Amino acid sequence: MATPSVKPTPLSPPLKDELDIVIPTIRNLDFLEMWRPFFEQYHLIIVQDGDPSKTIRVPDGFDYELYNRNDINRILGPKASCISFKDSACRCFGYLISKKKYIFTIDDDCFVAKDPSGNDINALQQHIKNLLTPSTPHFFNTLYDPYREGADFVRGYPFSLREGAPTAVSHGLWLNIPDYDAPTQLVKPLERNTRFVDAVMTIPKGTLFPMCGMNLAFDRELIGPAMYFGLMGDGQPIGRYDDMWAGWCMKVICDHLGLGVKTGLPYIWHSKASNPFVNLKKEYNGIFWQEKAIPFFQSVSLPKDCTTVQQCYLTLANEVKAKLGEVDPYFVKLADAMVTWIEAWDEVNSPGKKPAKLPNGTSK
Amino acid sequence: MATPSVKPTPLSPPLKDELDIVIPTIRNLDFLEMWRPFFEQYHLIIVQDGDPSKTIRVPDGFDYELYNRNDINRILGPKASCISFKDSACRCFGYLISKKKYIFTIDDDCFVAKDPSGNDINALQQHIKNLLTPSTPHFFNTLYDPYREGADFVRGYPFSLREGAPTAVSHGLWLNIPDYDAPTQLVKPLERNTRFVDAVMTIPKGTLFPMCGMNLAFDRELIGPAMYFGLMGDGQPIGRYDDMWAGWCMKVICDHLGLGVKTGLPYIWHSKASNPFVNLKKEYNGIFWQEKAIPFFQSVSLPKDCTTVQQCYLTLANEVKAKLGEVDPYFVKLADAMVTWIEAWDEVNSPGKKPAKLPNGTSK
Repeated sequence: MATPSVKPTPLSPPLKDELDIVIPTIRNLDFLEMWRPFFEQYHLIIVQDGDPSKTIRVPDGFDYELYNRNDINRILGPKASCISFKDSACRCFGYLISKKKYIFTIDDDCFVAKDPSGNDINALQQHIKNLLTPSTPHFFNTLYDPYREGADFVRGYPFSLREGAPTAVSHGLWLNIPDYDAPTQLVKPLERNTRFVDAVMTIPKGTLFPMCGMNLAFDRELIGPAMYFGLMGDGQPIGRYDDMWAGWCMKVICDHLGLGVKTGLPYIWHSKASNPFVNLKKEYNGIFWQEKAIPFFQSVSLPKDCTTVQQCYLTLANEVKAKLGEVDPYFVKLADAMVTWIEAWDEVNSPGKKPAKLPNGTSK
Repeated sequence: MATPSVKPTPLSPPLKDELDIVIPTIRNLDFLEMWRPFFEQYHLIIVQDGDPSKTIRVPDGFDYELYNRNDINRILGPKASCISFKDSACRCFGYLISKKKYIFTIDDDCFVAKDPSGNDINALQQHIKNLLTPSTPHFFNTLYDPYREGADFVRGYPFSLREGAPTAVSHGLWLNIPDYDAPTQLVKPLERNTRFVDAVMTIPKGTLFPMCGMNLAFDRELIGPAMYFGLMGDGQPIGRYDDMWAGWCMKVICDHLGLGVKTGLPYIWHSKASNPFVNLKKEYNGIFWQEKAIPFFQSVSLPKDCTTVQQCYLTLANEVKAKLGEVDPYFVKLADAMVTWIEAWDEVNSPGKKPAKLPNGTSK
């Protein structure tokens, strides 16, 4: 008997229905062409920054929803005040509105990088690997990620810690233009990152790091409400600290809740250096304030009865107001916005809440 | 006028007169042939383990001193009890007897590795680079060692921390045979480390790691007295935890004193896997004890008035006796040996102390 011919089912990419790609932008998204083989089957959430009357062109064939400032105001009402305007910090609106378990966020000046063998790097796939394997925040493994093929825990690694911790965040890196601050950009305008470091590692418990939002993935269910990118840009005395702020808050909460944060692979190709003079203006206050903020985050401790991300975040907001409010009134406003953010998150994400009507693009 | 012909002065390798290479061994040191281009101008301290009547052959042309058990007993008298016998832990006698500022220690089954371009790796040179540039224990830099060519501190790294901390220890890695414990060796007998990770990084303050003694360098003046490799081997209930013990003690003291510890490059080629059955016998107790020892080291705190390595180490010995003595009487004996080690160190290294007569080999 002849077997009836069966059309083979195309393989779905990993987490296809469980991950949203969040992109903040002010321009046409031509950069997506290069990512087409890797992103085309995923859903995109585009957060349009700046003038809402401008039309952002998205290449054909992508499945996306797009929110501009008018949409954000309509959906969040007065709580929209916590979402930054004229700053890529607005991307966190995409985290809030997503209904998926995982988020990958990428900047529109990031292209596909090549590994040392010349192959295109599927950044999203590596982030997914990072998120789906445990982290090792409680003890350092000298051969880096012990869950990676060809690696393991080395001699002297306690066996009781080898199960690791759930991974909340995967922080990817950048070839070509490194993520330098304005002073370093000014001093080293020609420096390019050409070193491909073939490693993923866990940032140990108790250690802070500068989280960059350019190439970042996280488990929204585990840590989403802590990924608030703060008040930056229009009307604020600071910019370019949105991801840093989220990174400090997120890491303190991950440490408290026993969650892991990884950094390293995947690399993307960061195509263009932003203007260091413009950056210096944005960063100016942050350069001073981080000298106070980092010791604050290094020493803040959350009480044991904070067992959810929301509880931790609200406690942290209180501490920010009490301790950093003395540094500058900006932190009082930021602390209030942190509370508003959690209220907005809970409102949009409460069980039984109808999904917000999608304003633009196509949706499933 | 003709310039008189001047013979060019050969360049001295870095730290030639400030660094000793310490090698513990039980066999002829033929492995040095491969290291000749890199080690020949340095001074070697060979610590002969096991039967002192055996003659160890050292290839011609190396400048060395060699100590066997009889020498150790003669030099240290009753304090020789703190130096292990029939275990590579005896290498720490070489640290104690050295008069140099820096130590590089390497096992005799470690060969020269190749980098991805096929070039021989000068491991010693990389260790020296690691030791002579600062560490960054107080904040994580996502582009790894910021002092390396082509790298720097990334955006969001506090400027007040960019001077870094003095580097006390440089921990190198291994290609080919990874440094696995006996259970992992048994489960994965064929696993080889083929991943060349092109990075050097600081192990953050407050984080412990499994320090391997196979390929290790340190600043003897900054941290020497903490590099005691414990009581292992002959007559002891444990082996293969000598470097781990030193690593835990050293890291706690470096954290207290504000010193840095790096890991990563350089790689050596580890040629042969040791017997996992023999290793299991040696490690057996350690596998249980490390589950108590590591939480102890994670929580121990040294008082502010401990400002020298010796003071820190003696305080730690007291704590070991008090807290780990309950786990097994072995730790009481070990704590006493820690005190003896410091006494021996101070005796041999006290100012005005005549250098010990060199028993063998040649010396400058």
